[in-house]
Amino acid sequence: IPKKLVTSVSGCVDDALAGLVSCNPGLRLLRGHRVILRDDLPALRGRVALLSGGGSGHEPAHAGYVGKGMLTGAVAGAVFTSPSVGSVLAAIRAVAQAGAAGILLIVKNYTGDRLNFGMALERARSEGMDVRMVVVGDDCAFAAPGKAGRRGICGTVLIHKVAGALAEAGAGLDEIVEKVTAASKAMGSLGLSLSPCSIPGSKPSFRLAEDEMELGLGIHGEAGVRRMKVLPADEAVETMLEHMTDPSNASHLSLTPGSSVVLMVNNLGGLSCLELGIVAGAAVRCLESRGIRIARALVGSFMTALEMAGVSLTLLVVDEELLRLIDAKTTAMAWPNIPMGPATSRREEVPAPMDVPGNPLDEVDTGPGAAWLEPVLERVCSTLLDIQDQLNQLDREAGDGDCGHTHARAAQAIREWMHSRPLPAAPSQLLSSLADLLLEKMGGSSGVLYGLFLTAAAQSLRGRSDAAAWADAMDSGIGAMQRYGGAAPGDRTMLDSLCAAAQALHSLRVPGADPLRVLEAAVQSAEAAAESTRHMEAAAGRASYIRSSRLEHPDPGAVAVAAVLGAVL
Amino acid sequence: IPKKLVTSVSGCVDDALAGLVSCNPGLRLLRGHRVILRDDLPALRGRVALLSGGGSGHEPAHAGYVGKGMLTGAVAGAVFTSPSVGSVLAAIRAVAQAGAAGILLIVKNYTGDRLNFGMALERARSEGMDVRMVVVGDDCAFAAPGKAGRRGICGTVLIHKVAGALAEAGAGLDEIVEKVTAASKAMGSLGLSLSPCSIPGSKPSFRLAEDEMELGLGIHGEAGVRRMKVLPADEAVETMLEHMTDPSNASHLSLTPGSSVVLMVNNLGGLSCLELGIVAGAAVRCLESRGIRIARALVGSFMTALEMAGVSLTLLVVDEELLRLIDAKTTAMAWPNIPMGPATSRREEVPAPMDVPGNPLDEVDTGPGAAWLEPVLERVCSTLLDIQDQLNQLDREAGDGDCGHTHARAAQAIREWMHSRPLPAAPSQLLSSLADLLLEKMGGSSGVLYGLFLTAAAQSLRGRSDAAAWADAMDSGIGAMQRYGGAAPGDRTMLDSLCAAAQALHSLRVPGADPLRVLEAAVQSAEAAAESTRHMEAAAGRASYIRSSRLEHPDPGAVAVAAVLGAVL
Repeated sequence: IPKKLVTSVSGCVDDALAGLVSCNPGLRLLRGHRVILRDDLPALRGRVALLSGGGSGHEPAHAGYVGKGMLTGAVAGAVFTSPSVGSVLAAIRAVAQAGAAGILLIVKNYTGDRLNFGMALERARSEGMDVRMVVVGDDCAFAAPGKAGRRGICGTVLIHKVAGALAEAGAGLDEIVEKVTAASKAMGSLGLSLSPCSIPGSKPSFRLAEDEMELGLGIHGEAGVRRMKVLPADEAVETMLEHMTDPSNASHLSLTPGSSVVLMVNNLGGLSCLELGIVAGAAVRCLESRGIRIARALVGSFMTALEMAGVSLTLLVVDEELLRLIDAKTTAMAWPNIPMGPATSRREEVPAPMDVPGNPLDEVDTGPGAAWLEPVLERVCSTLLDIQDQLNQLDREAGDGDCGHTHARAAQAIREWMHSRPLPAAPSQLLSSLADLLLEKMGGSSGVLYGLFLTAAAQSLRGRSDAAAWADAMDSGIGAMQRYGGAAPGDRTMLDSLCAAAQALHSLRVPGADPLRVLEAAVQSAEAAAESTRHMEAAAGRASYIRSSRLEHPDPGAVAVAAVLGAVL
Repeated sequence: IPKKLVTSVSGCVDDALAGLVSCNPGLRLLRGHRVILRDDLPALRGRVALLSGGGSGHEPAHAGYVGKGMLTGAVAGAVFTSPSVGSVLAAIRAVAQAGAAGILLIVKNYTGDRLNFGMALERARSEGMDVRMVVVGDDCAFAAPGKAGRRGICGTVLIHKVAGALAEAGAGLDEIVEKVTAASKAMGSLGLSLSPCSIPGSKPSFRLAEDEMELGLGIHGEAGVRRMKVLPADEAVETMLEHMTDPSNASHLSLTPGSSVVLMVNNLGGLSCLELGIVAGAAVRCLESRGIRIARALVGSFMTALEMAGVSLTLLVVDEELLRLIDAKTTAMAWPNIPMGPATSRREEVPAPMDVPGNPLDEVDTGPGAAWLEPVLERVCSTLLDIQDQLNQLDREAGDGDCGHTHARAAQAIREWMHSRPLPAAPSQLLSSLADLLLEKMGGSSGVLYGLFLTAAAQSLRGRSDAAAWADAMDSGIGAMQRYGGAAPGDRTMLDSLCAAAQALHSLRVPGADPLRVLEAAVQSAEAAAESTRHMEAAAGRASYIRSSRLEHPDPGAVAVAAVLGAVL
């Protein structure tokens, strides 16, 4: 049984309703019932009241749509269970007693909801109230739907909006029924999911293989029309829209080029918002390619199936009047802050700003080691590629496990760069160019840190190429890194290796020192320092948020720096 | 590797950004960069521009907060990867060239973001632009945070709002920096998750046991401060708030009774909205019990970690000015339609409406079978309890698997009712009472269908108790069921058994017929009809949405009816 963040299984619906009312000063609970009502019932007098509802587990539907300009009230059942006749009746009586001029029940087409709302309606009528019922069916899943007709799914929220705007504007019950009935027919929806969902305390409603998705499933986890291998998002959307508008599908929505639609991209619960945005973009492109104008696009969680990792698309064919009703203001908490303009994949981009040119370095001094540059750089690159897996493994312990990839990316970039043009001979120019290259191509913190290091080091080497200049360059680079990165030696970062090496390199300032011997000592120091990070507590970077007891290996950045210095040697 | 609804792993961020811009006429992409800008850049002239951003995977952060009254632009990196210095710099140049009077970078406290935004800031300054940076750290997870300080998580969205409202009102760069720096210090957040998340194309970032949750984890799936057994939601919230405000925790938020806060209940991605509402309610109660006033509550998906099934709580201590800034209008799509009033668990309920009394049945005629009523009802109840598992099993194929539970609930209710008062002797009164009882206690479609059946049947038995009256009652009951339920015989529902039995019961109208023999025949017909539903295509009820090839067993409702009739016999 999957984990859930609930206080008790039996109380989960009541707790969620109480939570909603707690957070929304415009809502009230009806005593003794799972009924949410607007707090301004007296404002109803002479207006049509709108009630909807159904099983829970579809939050924010329906209580999230209670507010000025949408629903007057919502009746909730247990999870995926139709609300009781008694609660529907209590809601009807409450709004009738508040003086509503007619009451409309907006019901999703499920047998249970039809029966319970219908029975309450019959009882209310026998008590003399003016009640009507609109049954919304928008699901385009079934090529040959049963006598029951299309299921009611996410499009119901658009009906709440249309009816709510009409009622707020003072329309009568007959007019509202007529207009929402017409809107309901001009609407179609379809769901797609990568996962099932599970009622609190129960097992998942069905199983999907690791590479499968299900098309046309219901919002209670009922099976759909087709199970298929997971498709790329754009093809999945194409398949959905094709199915929804296919004239051979008895439940299809007729959509002709030139039509205007409101598009709703609904998260069924557990899909990431990243994926939802990708689906939304694909839907806009796909509709445009069919000559459809997307007057508005709504993207979010409107009618969920608990934590199902899926999406549904809803299309409502609109004229100007319907669009005005969709755009009308509402205080309902779950109605999004939608922009009042059409969706299109063809928005103009803002032109990129002009690059501000830097100071060209025009030094030509080659320094003593110019001939070694190419083999040294090549050795650095091959070393980084060799230790890629080792660095990734070390990084997995404390970070996102990409330290090896990042350094390998740098190595590849340097190689490509070396082969594409002659190397700058002056050390200052070389380091400066490498700084730009790594900033651009290496990515991540490491790219910037190396970039900062190399930029500062390059400054120390301007017009110099003696051994002592290299010691100064090392110190400047380290200084820049500390200034922006916020770390210090002992913090379990690449600074540990760098600082140890820098210390050893100070000997380069001693006249007559053998540069190779000094470098050898520096490499040994760096390697020892890298190894010693094994026992350090991380105090900077992402690893610093890990309990030190969990860290048992050396820091990958420190290891990489030691390896680079070794390669140079 | 978990399934994802993406078109390609490498293109997922660009596709999601394109989708966002497609759906929002107020946004534009900056050519060549993962930068989203407001489309009304000329309106910036003389105002401070606000830029934020960071790795992707936290949608709707940050591009969803671009709009009038919030951000001027957002810079996105790859999933969970800091954006490039080049893109940050391009965004800065674009708003500077549009005439911004100062630019503020709002950066979540992560080393990568600090480095990249910081490096871009240094470059922009060297180009003469007036740029400042505010680093937001709101994570209260770590008792002893490293030198890096608190991580930046969901509270950053409130900083966007505060800064955005100030900039919109024409505040200068210094004033905005000062006020958001102060707000940032008066803020704390903490996350809790039941699951990890996974970058598209990668494995989950960590593993949690089936009964574990993790406290204080980061929005990139970094490990948290404590792993524990899953707690009930109210205790989990208590634990979170306790940790966030514990003075011995170096990263805690000081919260004193009497303070006013803005509460943000943030879905980390994959938590159901039902659970989110439960957590929100628990947070309000828990804060109230500490004497905290919750000036506003925001509940939704604000800063996610892909599909992580978790929640974070953010508290911002507010004065009147901060609250006005939070309440100020914005066109940013991801800012919710929040009600302008405090949250409290102590809202008054709307009194329940008065029950409208029905017509009391005052018949006393006992009919021929009065003495058998109690044993007959008892046998019906014990039969339904006996076949509970069988009915659930049959229902699992096509429905939600609760048909047996529903009938068992009815049986229990009837038993309790029988033992609590003397049975009404008149058949009409008995059926009418049973109708009310099942309507109230059985629940689901079955409860209403039985209720409709019994109510109509009771009408046929008013003042009568002869054998023919029972045949009429059966017909009336079936008629009512068909009228509201929309099914007919042959549709694979309980009507199949009922109609077969009704047909046989018509013999009761033949003078001199032996009621027991007739009933026996009716039971046989009902059982045969129930069995024959095995080969029927479902045409009504939830099962009608299932491909018939998947259905291999008889309909549970039809089986239940046949069993009830058998028990009566």
